[in-house]
Amino acid sequence: MHFSARITVRFGDCDPAGLVYYPALFHYCHVAMEEFFAVRCGVEYARLVADERVGFPTVNARAEFFEPFVYGDVAEVEVWASRVGRSSVTFEYRLRRERDGRLCASATLVQVSMNLDERRAVPVPANLRLVFESGAE
Amino acid sequence: MHFSARITVRFGDCDPAGLVYYPALFHYCHVAMEEFFAVRCGVEYARLVADERVGFPTVNARAEFFEPFVYGDVAEVEVWASRVGRSSVTFEYRLRRERDGRLCASATLVQVSMNLDERRAVPVPANLRLVFESGAE
Amino acid sequence: MHFSARITVRFGDCDPAGLVYYPALFHYCHVAMEEFFAVRCGVEYARLVADERVGFPTVNARAEFFEPFVYGDVAEVEVWASRVGRSSVTFEYRLRRERDGRLCASATLVQVSMNLDERRAVPVPANLRLVFESGAE
Amino acid sequence: MHFSARITVRFGDCDPAGLVYYPALFHYCHVAMEEFFAVRCGVEYARLVADERVGFPTVNARAEFFEPFVYGDVAEVEVWASRVGRSSVTFEYRLRRERDGRLCASATLVQVSMNLDERRAVPVPANLRLVFESGAE
Repeated sequence: MHFSARITVRFGDCDPAGLVYYPALFHYCHVAMEEFFAVRCGVEYARLVADERVGFPTVNARAEFFEPFVYGDVAEVEVWASRVGRSSVTFEYRLRRERDGRLCASATLVQVSMNLDERRAVPVPANLRLVFESGAE
Repeated sequence: MHFSARITVRFGDCDPAGLVYYPALFHYCHVAMEEFFAVRCGVEYARLVADERVGFPTVNARAEFFEPFVYGDVAEVEVWASRVGRSSVTFEYRLRRERDGRLCASATLVQVSMNLDERRAVPVPANLRLVFESGAE
Repeated sequence: MHFSARITVRFGDCDPAGLVYYPALFHYCHVAMEEFFAVRCGVEYARLVADERVGFPTVNARAEFFEPFVYGDVAEVEVWASRVGRSSVTFEYRLRRERDGRLCASATLVQVSMNLDERRAVPVPANLRLVFESGAE
Repeated sequence: MHFSARITVRFGDCDPAGLVYYPALFHYCHVAMEEFFAVRCGVEYARLVADERVGFPTVNARAEFFEPFVYGDVAEVEVWASRVGRSSVTFEYRLRRERDGRLCASATLVQVSMNLDERRAVPVPANLRLVFESGAE
């Protein structure tokens, strides 16, 4: 089963239209990915960045926003790796409204395994690859 | 010629990897769109939202990030409408690094003309349609 | 006992110096207050804003930052009302690092009970006053 | 004369109450400080952080918010150093609404000169001290 993170929509995430400002939805995806690393990969993204100097910046993003999230909503953000390349991973994100399970947004992000000091692509670390592939479809 | 907004990368936009946190790049697109409304459309987006209760939330996003923006960079964000439907507009964004003109990111956002009180799609206002179409390719 | 919210420091909250960008710490205070409303006051801040059109914008802030929060930290944010006036409340916030209980930041915010439509101060709603006063020292 | 930065309130800075989310006002102060460094100090804050590994994180903040900024406003943010210690600087910020010159917010931030690699206080660099002191009152 795919990993899912529960994210409460915050006052500061919403715009004067009362909706979640859409860049914040990409932030939610990143938060869900951070939780995914902590829970499923056995390594905090923070440790990966600080100790291994490896991160997964986004190089390609496709997203659809079907229904707005509003202040007061809770988002269930499902995340998994759908494709694992040599030095890139495609992460899938599905954002549902907890209240009624409605799919509000969907995102597919290609993220590159990057050495943060030299800012160049590196092979996906083997321990992460194993976890990513176990969830790939 | 397409409209272009100059956006300075701020300390708070960058992450511990030293790169602009990618959701902030979508914020840059929105800022550029706000400038586009003020300069080219003859109406502040703020006025549109407050007085007409019309906004253009994003329903579909595709983006590519070719090179990271880092702290110290200035982004030139070109914005234009490439397609104008009945109640939606496709906005194109090209984000270049001012220093060397390098294309660092590209985004295509489908944004819906929405009545913010009733949260339903409405026809693109006629005055805006004229401006959008004059820049469409 | 005072209410406490657990807030995980996120990648996007941190700056190129690797520390939590200090405006984000005020965001953490607001998040803790939102949790406080939900758990202790029996009303979601979202409902208060949407249905009653009452909010508590900040009019005065004093804060001290003793030690930086860094990416990978979890913050325990204690929140309580230390003084309840006719139309204002003084909220206290203590931000501790979960790992070692170290007090990293402290904030005292005076927040005004405001009618959001008319943007003027209104008396603190009676049900909230009761809760606030029960926690005041 | 004190330095002043012009900052346009953005859609994404505002909350569902239609006001600038108050942590964003501290972000405005930081942006104004970044402009102050670039224009008055002859060094980009980005260069200081990247090359000298020196930054000025905030250790103490006092702020008053007299009137809310709303979407559509432009803020004029005046910034100057009011006190320069051995390894700390007190920066003053005054945020006025451009439209009518009204003082909407005021902040006094004590910021420490910090070596970002070792995360310890260091003496204020001599070239910056000169500039800071010339503006001190």
